[in-house]
Amino acid sequence: MNFKMVFHILGKVLYITAILMLLPLIVAFIYGEKDTYIGFVIPILILFAAGIPLEIFKPKNTLIFAKEGLITVALAWIVTSLIGALPFYISGYIPSFLDSLFETVSGFTTTGASILANVEIMPYSLLFWRSFTHWIGGMGVLVFILAVIPKTDMSMMHLLRAEAPGPVIGKLVAKMRLSARILYGIYILMTILLIIFLVAGRMPFFDSIVTSFATAGTGGFGIKNNSIAFYNSAYIDIVLSVFMILFGVNFNIYYLILLKNFKRAFSNEELKWYLGIIAIACITMAINISSLYPNFLESLRYSFFQVSSIITTTGFSTADFNLWPSFSKTLMLLLMVIGASAGSTGGGIKVSRVIILFKSVKNSIKSMINPRSVTSINLSGEIIDSKTEKGVLNYFSLYMLIAVTSVVILSFDQYDGITNISAVLATLNNVGPGLRAAGPLNNYSGFSEISKITLILNMLIGRLEIYPILVLFSPFTWKRR
Amino acid sequence: MNFKMVFHILGKVLYITAILMLLPLIVAFIYGEKDTYIGFVIPILILFAAGIPLEIFKPKNTLIFAKEGLITVALAWIVTSLIGALPFYISGYIPSFLDSLFETVSGFTTTGASILANVEIMPYSLLFWRSFTHWIGGMGVLVFILAVIPKTDMSMMHLLRAEAPGPVIGKLVAKMRLSARILYGIYILMTILLIIFLVAGRMPFFDSIVTSFATAGTGGFGIKNNSIAFYNSAYIDIVLSVFMILFGVNFNIYYLILLKNFKRAFSNEELKWYLGIIAIACITMAINISSLYPNFLESLRYSFFQVSSIITTTGFSTADFNLWPSFSKTLMLLLMVIGASAGSTGGGIKVSRVIILFKSVKNSIKSMINPRSVTSINLSGEIIDSKTEKGVLNYFSLYMLIAVTSVVILSFDQYDGITNISAVLATLNNVGPGLRAAGPLNNYSGFSEISKITLILNMLIGRLEIYPILVLFSPFTWKRR
Repeated sequence: MNFKMVFHILGKVLYITAILMLLPLIVAFIYGEKDTYIGFVIPILILFAAGIPLEIFKPKNTLIFAKEGLITVALAWIVTSLIGALPFYISGYIPSFLDSLFETVSGFTTTGASILANVEIMPYSLLFWRSFTHWIGGMGVLVFILAVIPKTDMSMMHLLRAEAPGPVIGKLVAKMRLSARILYGIYILMTILLIIFLVAGRMPFFDSIVTSFATAGTGGFGIKNNSIAFYNSAYIDIVLSVFMILFGVNFNIYYLILLKNFKRAFSNEELKWYLGIIAIACITMAINISSLYPNFLESLRYSFFQVSSIITTTGFSTADFNLWPSFSKTLMLLLMVIGASAGSTGGGIKVSRVIILFKSVKNSIKSMINPRSVTSINLSGEIIDSKTEKGVLNYFSLYMLIAVTSVVILSFDQYDGITNISAVLATLNNVGPGLRAAGPLNNYSGFSEISKITLILNMLIGRLEIYPILVLFSPFTWKRR
Repeated sequence: MNFKMVFHILGKVLYITAILMLLPLIVAFIYGEKDTYIGFVIPILILFAAGIPLEIFKPKNTLIFAKEGLITVALAWIVTSLIGALPFYISGYIPSFLDSLFETVSGFTTTGASILANVEIMPYSLLFWRSFTHWIGGMGVLVFILAVIPKTDMSMMHLLRAEAPGPVIGKLVAKMRLSARILYGIYILMTILLIIFLVAGRMPFFDSIVTSFATAGTGGFGIKNNSIAFYNSAYIDIVLSVFMILFGVNFNIYYLILLKNFKRAFSNEELKWYLGIIAIACITMAINISSLYPNFLESLRYSFFQVSSIITTTGFSTADFNLWPSFSKTLMLLLMVIGASAGSTGGGIKVSRVIILFKSVKNSIKSMINPRSVTSINLSGEIIDSKTEKGVLNYFSLYMLIAVTSVVILSFDQYDGITNISAVLATLNNVGPGLRAAGPLNNYSGFSEISKITLILNMLIGRLEIYPILVLFSPFTWKRR
């Protein structure tokens, strides 16, 4: 294990987080929120004090392998979450450190699950930091580092692999630094575009910025207690619905569009399924909830928003879907699990994995009918090799095992089964709100400490796609050979 | 497709079912239940009338392949269920044919889910038939045919593969007819042994017979409204707990014991895990429910019975576990999914598949840490090849997809999420009672027709281990080449 290199990269992450944390401090200055200054200054000093010495010392051997990549990513996310929680804790706005950590991990992992009963009493600087963590976590700090550092060697690829969401990184990996820059470029542009759209819809400027951060990262933290319902605007609902869907698309497709390779961009199979699932879910849900709204167009507006919010795992809400019929709620749990596209900022299992899973079981039925039939799986015209296929099947199995174990742990709390199941799915898939006691008008503060730690791990496992966290805690990793 | 052979075997199944149905008719004579005579006579006549002509005509080409095997088994189970439902329907004791079919499929598949609100008003002959279907379905009609027909060719193996429960048939396949005889021999012996034990515990003779049928098949139909709680006897509870566990063991192990090959029998890895899971579940559940019972020994008695009943997917109950704490209920749902051992009469995913699943995901973590590590999976010292491993992963994925789809369909009904999830798991795993409205003191009569049909399919899919039913309804099967 190349520990020196792990710590060197970790150092970079720490001091870049320090620089990013200057932004909410500036917001605190602008709004004159003196009670939050110290809450930002202390973690910034810690980050610089720890980050700069680690970063300055560059090891001779910069070569790292998959194992180091996974561990660096896991450690980076855990350490920045621990320090990123300090502003909430030191300022006293979240009196418990565990709750502060929950809120910060929920931010960085773009989950959007909150322990706050009343978010509207929070100062602007903390609200800004809270939403900004979504934006940082959406694309990832390490991807950012790859975009800004002057020279990279190929072994850095392991970082991109471990942090960027989705099973297929695609051709982008070849030119890593360029890829990271393109990803962040598209990300920044789309965020600015959304801010403009929201301001045009008369959303206040501050609200537009933080809402755009939460949308871009598909995070879902709102700054109003009833989330987007507060603005009560069909325009804002539709703009956000469309942008949530856009941020849930594989960013490689935008890159292809930039290259004017429209044919390849729009023949993407995952994109078709993703949009198809959204369309079908929207319509069936609109029919299912139609009795609750004055006309079908209105129920379509609410189902469109909720479906976009859930499948992209953003977690905004414009209605208390706890009151919706059973079918809509079941469909929402299903959409949570499916999630957005690979290579997007959204969470969940990812549409492309679901496609491969479907094709794999379809082939297993075919091979039952004719055992000699050898059938391979195609995705967007490319053959998925048997190793990738098995990887997806293993991923799905691990995902289920983690979900089931988490539900068992949560069952020691006082809540009912649907609360527990939905809380696990809402955190593991980085959605945010679940159902019942974990629903959009409630919050996660009532869970026990053990349950909160379980849900924090679920959020990290979900955002980093299982393996980095498991590898960090696996005895095989630390066994001497 | 060798249709002639499919129909020939189907004919055998029909006339043997006719012979088996003579037994409840004899019971009707003994108890003088004249209102049920006609209910048995009509289906017996139908079975003979259809079965004998189909059976007499033996095709020249007796060769069948996997496809024919799967389809024959699926058809045999569906047709015998349809005709086996007639006694309930014709006698008028279950006025709806769909409900009669539900009850019969629940019987044959050894599920034990009932639509009857009051089972105690049913005549003896129908109660006998109801429990006898468990006993027939536990080992399977086709396995029975293989045991009794004079000459078998190897292609019949496909029938045994498709009907006998579990992923590994083992060495038994080599001598198929002998295997089928040994399986049924052990099955009959253990059933008789249980009857003796129950009679010794002062359970009425009729009750002992039908309870033994339901235990042997790990079915769970009781003849009292509050199931085994009615007898209120610690002796009976313990005898049944032990026998449920015994019927959930791979029958190959009994065969090895008969051969005095104790070393191989007790080194079986699935057996160790199976007993280990039972022990851990018993103790944690007993601790969890200890406040509900006067002392720990008493809570252990109840947890032992419930754990044995659920993991073997029998479904008997001695307590209303709806009232137990959340952890116990979650654990029970988990045990339902795990199920009993391969090659037993129990349902669920099966312990051996769960072991392979665990080992596969463990290897996937290892290969993340060191991508060049090639690790194979062992089960009881034998290497599981990559095809079997992928088969298990596909099985698990298919299982989850079917469960999720079924829950979505059930969500159109008026019930809550836990009722729906538990009803699907209780039928797909052939357990019987679920939670809430599908709990041990309730029944399945309140579900809509669509939901009942879904649950019927779940029971068949669970008992036949997914593929036969899917192959029957798959368009690939019927596509001309």
